[in-house]
Amino acid sequence: MNEFDVIVLGGGPGGYIAAERLGHAKKRVLLVEADALGGTCLNVGCIPTKALLNAAKTYAHAKHGAKLGVNAGDISVDWPTMQKWKKQTVDTLVGGVGQAEKKAGVTVVKGHGTFDGPGKVTVDGTQYTGKHVILATGSVPVMPPIPGAKDNPKVVDSTGMLAIEEIPARLAVIGGGVIGLEFASLFAMLGSEVTVVEMLPEIVPFMDDELAAQLRKGLADVKFKLECKVTAIDGGTVKYVTLAGAEESVEADVVLMAVGRRPLVQGWGAENSGLEFSGKGIVVDDRMRTNLPNVWAVGDVTGRSLLAHAAYRMGEIAVANILDPEAHRRGEIMRWNTIPWAVYSAPEAAGIGLTEKQAAAAGYTVGKVTVPAYLSGRFVAEEGVKAPGACKLVYDADSLTVLGVHVLGSYASEMVWGASVVLETELSITDLRQVVFPHPTVSELIREAAWAAKI
Amino acid sequence: MNEFDVIVLGGGPGGYIAAERLGHAKKRVLLVEADALGGTCLNVGCIPTKALLNAAKTYAHAKHGAKLGVNAGDISVDWPTMQKWKKQTVDTLVGGVGQAEKKAGVTVVKGHGTFDGPGKVTVDGTQYTGKHVILATGSVPVMPPIPGAKDNPKVVDSTGMLAIEEIPARLAVIGGGVIGLEFASLFAMLGSEVTVVEMLPEIVPFMDDELAAQLRKGLADVKFKLECKVTAIDGGTVKYVTLAGAEESVEADVVLMAVGRRPLVQGWGAENSGLEFSGKGIVVDDRMRTNLPNVWAVGDVTGRSLLAHAAYRMGEIAVANILDPEAHRRGEIMRWNTIPWAVYSAPEAAGIGLTEKQAAAAGYTVGKVTVPAYLSGRFVAEEGVKAPGACKLVYDADSLTVLGVHVLGSYASEMVWGASVVLETELSITDLRQVVFPHPTVSELIREAAWAAKI
Repeated sequence: MNEFDVIVLGGGPGGYIAAERLGHAKKRVLLVEADALGGTCLNVGCIPTKALLNAAKTYAHAKHGAKLGVNAGDISVDWPTMQKWKKQTVDTLVGGVGQAEKKAGVTVVKGHGTFDGPGKVTVDGTQYTGKHVILATGSVPVMPPIPGAKDNPKVVDSTGMLAIEEIPARLAVIGGGVIGLEFASLFAMLGSEVTVVEMLPEIVPFMDDELAAQLRKGLADVKFKLECKVTAIDGGTVKYVTLAGAEESVEADVVLMAVGRRPLVQGWGAENSGLEFSGKGIVVDDRMRTNLPNVWAVGDVTGRSLLAHAAYRMGEIAVANILDPEAHRRGEIMRWNTIPWAVYSAPEAAGIGLTEKQAAAAGYTVGKVTVPAYLSGRFVAEEGVKAPGACKLVYDADSLTVLGVHVLGSYASEMVWGASVVLETELSITDLRQVVFPHPTVSELIREAAWAAKI
Repeated sequence: MNEFDVIVLGGGPGGYIAAERLGHAKKRVLLVEADALGGTCLNVGCIPTKALLNAAKTYAHAKHGAKLGVNAGDISVDWPTMQKWKKQTVDTLVGGVGQAEKKAGVTVVKGHGTFDGPGKVTVDGTQYTGKHVILATGSVPVMPPIPGAKDNPKVVDSTGMLAIEEIPARLAVIGGGVIGLEFASLFAMLGSEVTVVEMLPEIVPFMDDELAAQLRKGLADVKFKLECKVTAIDGGTVKYVTLAGAEESVEADVVLMAVGRRPLVQGWGAENSGLEFSGKGIVVDDRMRTNLPNVWAVGDVTGRSLLAHAAYRMGEIAVANILDPEAHRRGEIMRWNTIPWAVYSAPEAAGIGLTEKQAAAAGYTVGKVTVPAYLSGRFVAEEGVKAPGACKLVYDADSLTVLGVHVLGSYASEMVWGASVVLETELSITDLRQVVFPHPTVSELIREAAWAAKI
């Protein structure tokens, strides 16, 4: 009764997809989750932020609709209703995951699971055994030891920010990565005065520098303090030192700590299990195998990628290789270079593959081309000719193979999966020129860029 | 001075792209346009409708924003400003085409050109010669000989509809194809009472029946009269006969005639040129060659596809084969099955490749799978769980090769280029499952469908 083919520890995207796929393959699966199914992504990450960002975009569009012929004289934000919509979305989707697991025949146990070594997981005093164990414990926000941050009621992490009771008049965001930027964009749209303090010279470190700078300028209502290191927080005062050494500060009603997340490798038995860790997380190979036999790790806990869709894919890779030890020969390995990313700010940004710098560092003779978004008729028809946006392609100048696709502008997140296919199938700039895009779309920028490349 | 390498007759998408590409290839090019550069698409087609549709969507979103927490108590449409935004968009883009031609070194002549046989085009009495001639004269709206339609001030075609001076209280649309539906959706959003009268059993004949029916239901504010044949128009009264033979009518303030477009094969010398015509348009092969030597035809005038992006590609194919007679061996031929389409109604629809019926007719053992849009977390976060939307994949059940991708729902138009790549590279359902899509996006529905397929 407590014996399974596979035990999955953690019900976030990596874990729940693995469990579901295994269930459909007729395996006996136990999915252990301490909190709510869906993990960070569904409960306090991707999904609630998207619900709020869409509502905020609706507000911003209406507010700025006069030039389009939409007059909204009396428009306001009802934050409790926005929160209600968010909660309803989350509840619906968490319920959906539960139903999907049920449909797949997965046994779900709610409780804090601990890993007792290969084949063994204990939940609330009951030990379960499984031929395989998939570790999918996720990640938690990093709370850096900044003086005055701890136990400061004005300082919140992303989870706390999602639940605040009113829109802050002034918001300080520490960290200009994806999470920080999405909240910065969200609250700037809702009327907060937002300042982002970032230690590095540019926001969103994994973005191509050229488009990251354009994104930053595109977030016109947000103030950025780059190359500034936060030294202390005193109530709502965030103190920082500039690159030149000047001591400055920004006053805020809420301070969002968004300096990153770290793999959750403690508190569930990992420490004494013999699992191998890198500085980043559990060490895995491209089939998601750990150093222990029949123990797999997927998602944020590996530290390889902290994206929900990367976790899905890692879960699928583990499943494929559990079901068939030869699966890796059929391409069922993680291809880390074909994982797209998206930032759901306004404007949106998305991309996949190598940036210009990464391509150079990898030894390629780098080809590159950037086109402005106003080359897209739809972009001009919807956003106007001066709105921020661009598309950049990075390619191997010798073979013309596309190495990276980077987009800034409306719909970026929805068009970028096509670039996944381009990279997976190793298309060249010449091949890409032959692909027909529907007109008029913003996605045509990718085609425009391919044609603008000097090849 | 009047000698060119290539003369392009018609400055719409097929013609202007051909001219531009040839110019960049250092050819001496003459582009002849009787009216405004950009053709139907830019001036009275794709672009102005998209400008208006986006404005209407902004209005509709604001109007229905209360559930999201966006209260717009006092919201209204300012039609003259909407028209101004449309005009500004068109002017900007038409100007952009002019600049692009100039940059490419193309000579543009404004005037009515006539084709005097291979190598010869006359414009306003001046004869120009070219080694090659590309015919790109486009299409015009069909005006069926319905009694009472001609010279009826209440009856307009799509060009007239774009320029109407006020939003009609009641709009009747004759024809449920793409053009009719986009206008129906537009004016329904703006508050018109809209009725679409369509002769066929379902709207948008090239759509997969299943999704076409869902699109129709999704256009909840539009009344549809299917299998109804219009017999006469009397002022604003549209009389029609139902399939059962009943005579009915609908009253409207404006009647939009949107039964289709036909290739423009008259009035520019085609009649006596020796060009071969099918019932549809100028006959071309897959390299866009006509039956006459060094005479090419691209775009709507071929009748092969009436989509702007198909015209672009036809223009490029003609250019590639003009520049290099061996180009067809490098894949530079029209692949008619990899041209996507999009309907920019609310909800949007888009697709590419074969419908279920077409796949069966082509002799495939048809595999198919349809998933509802609420499987996408972003869709639920933005539209709600009950909003209309779905994704359908059609595939060869033997080889698992994807034959068609059909999407109904938000962002459909922007995600479908990826399906062009899928069809171009002949990916299977199994391959598609390995592609990583960014989360959360509506595009993930394509991935969900691939995983839901019973293979």
